[in-house]
Amino acid sequence: MNRDQLFAQIKKKKSYLCVGLDTDLEKIPKHLLTTSDPIFEFNKRIIDATRDYCVAYKPNVAFYEVQGAKGWESLRKTLDYIPKDCFTIADAKRGDIGNTSSLYARAFFQNLSFDSITVAPYMGEDSIKPFLEFEDKWVILLIHTSNKGSEDFQLLQTREGKFLYEEVIFASQRWATPDQMMYVVGATHGEKIASIRMLAPDHFFLVPGVGAQGGDLEVVSKEGMNEQCGLLVNSSRAIIYASSKEDFAEAARTEARKVRDKMDQYLQEFANP
Amino acid sequence: MNRDQLFAQIKKKKSYLCVGLDTDLEKIPKHLLTTSDPIFEFNKRIIDATRDYCVAYKPNVAFYEVQGAKGWESLRKTLDYIPKDCFTIADAKRGDIGNTSSLYARAFFQNLSFDSITVAPYMGEDSIKPFLEFEDKWVILLIHTSNKGSEDFQLLQTREGKFLYEEVIFASQRWATPDQMMYVVGATHGEKIASIRMLAPDHFFLVPGVGAQGGDLEVVSKEGMNEQCGLLVNSSRAIIYASSKEDFAEAARTEARKVRDKMDQYLQEFANP
Repeated sequence: MNRDQLFAQIKKKKSYLCVGLDTDLEKIPKHLLTTSDPIFEFNKRIIDATRDYCVAYKPNVAFYEVQGAKGWESLRKTLDYIPKDCFTIADAKRGDIGNTSSLYARAFFQNLSFDSITVAPYMGEDSIKPFLEFEDKWVILLIHTSNKGSEDFQLLQTREGKFLYEEVIFASQRWATPDQMMYVVGATHGEKIASIRMLAPDHFFLVPGVGAQGGDLEVVSKEGMNEQCGLLVNSSRAIIYASSKEDFAEAARTEARKVRDKMDQYLQEFANP
Repeated sequence: MNRDQLFAQIKKKKSYLCVGLDTDLEKIPKHLLTTSDPIFEFNKRIIDATRDYCVAYKPNVAFYEVQGAKGWESLRKTLDYIPKDCFTIADAKRGDIGNTSSLYARAFFQNLSFDSITVAPYMGEDSIKPFLEFEDKWVILLIHTSNKGSEDFQLLQTREGKFLYEEVIFASQRWATPDQMMYVVGATHGEKIASIRMLAPDHFFLVPGVGAQGGDLEVVSKEGMNEQCGLLVNSSRAIIYASSKEDFAEAARTEARKVRDKMDQYLQEFANP
């Protein structure tokens, strides 16, 4: 999916919500555990319930790898099930030497047909380039993450007086256009999102950390929105685990619609088309 | 496996060789492709051929993920097959927010019983901590990698006049002891290994980049060795693809023995027990 197609979906659905499929056998409703593939069964029903209100799905790959080969199969079936008008994100945080990153790109872009993958920047340009060689596929580069540890290195100041995360923005803009690359910017850095937007006016930001981690959707939307919206705001636990009972899908739909309604309002207030 | 046990293996085998199981269906001998699990079949014969001359095996997880669920199963069988006196490294370069890193730790330490996993530092302390909660399991943290892109961020200088990779060493030493953490230091930075050794006198270094990537074993050994050897030097392609014919296992054994013989010599020359 390319940038124009993504923006068209955002306008159509009045939503920039990404639903995080962090599907955990210990948290899904008990009655699903008797099915042959509880993780896929849960995802299927969550997707059916939320697809009208979100524009993207983001399975975090760790939740599937912890189930071994079976988890990988649940992930594949989930990808096949996600409607083609939804953007898909492999939250995998990969990155390795060139020939190895090429394999990860094949695994996630070709075999699993994800639109995008999250990538860690520490190993530099040649660890990122192989992901950029696929048409209409995206690298979503870690810039300033939502966790406490984001302060440890991302906020180190360089000799030129920049934060490390700013250096990552500058360097990566030489490697890829805003049609190939998005940035991960945590919702927990609300006040800083405006300054990051100034450094990257055209890039989409994938914003985790709203909800369970404490980020504020209104602040993120006000500070981060650009002419093409430019935001995909992720919510995982608050939506998919809205209820732990048999009504989990309906509860997820209700939560997703609530978020969509707020986003509809913010799109009118803050976007400058 | 703990540090004393690893050092005992190094002394016993007179080797600090790690064999990289970067097993690629396009590179393994054609006659194996008719077996039911060619990747495992290849690994099995490589392990049988090299186990006397190496102390560690390092499957790079990308080579297995590109095969989907079947690849994950090949990886599991490989882990089960590696002799218990060999140290095992999941070259996965993971790292995510705390609750997600916990899942990766379970996937690689519990389900697959790896001794260690490579981890990227960008997300900071809480992305690394969950891996440290397992007894006699190790984090192998990316410090200064072997690829060209290692110059992009790892060599940024901070306001205090340190390289970013030095800041990662300083910070990580507050989080873990040399009994829980090793460092990835590329063989391609030969001349710098002595300075990194001064910052981390007791840590084991996992050293990729000898062979195909151009690093020099003698320089690495001279500059990097400490009292407990402190080095695991990886070789992948030069050993496992020494021959592409039916004699591939014998050829791998011959190559591994050659490296071991040099290591035996360097242990006598450069170690200071």
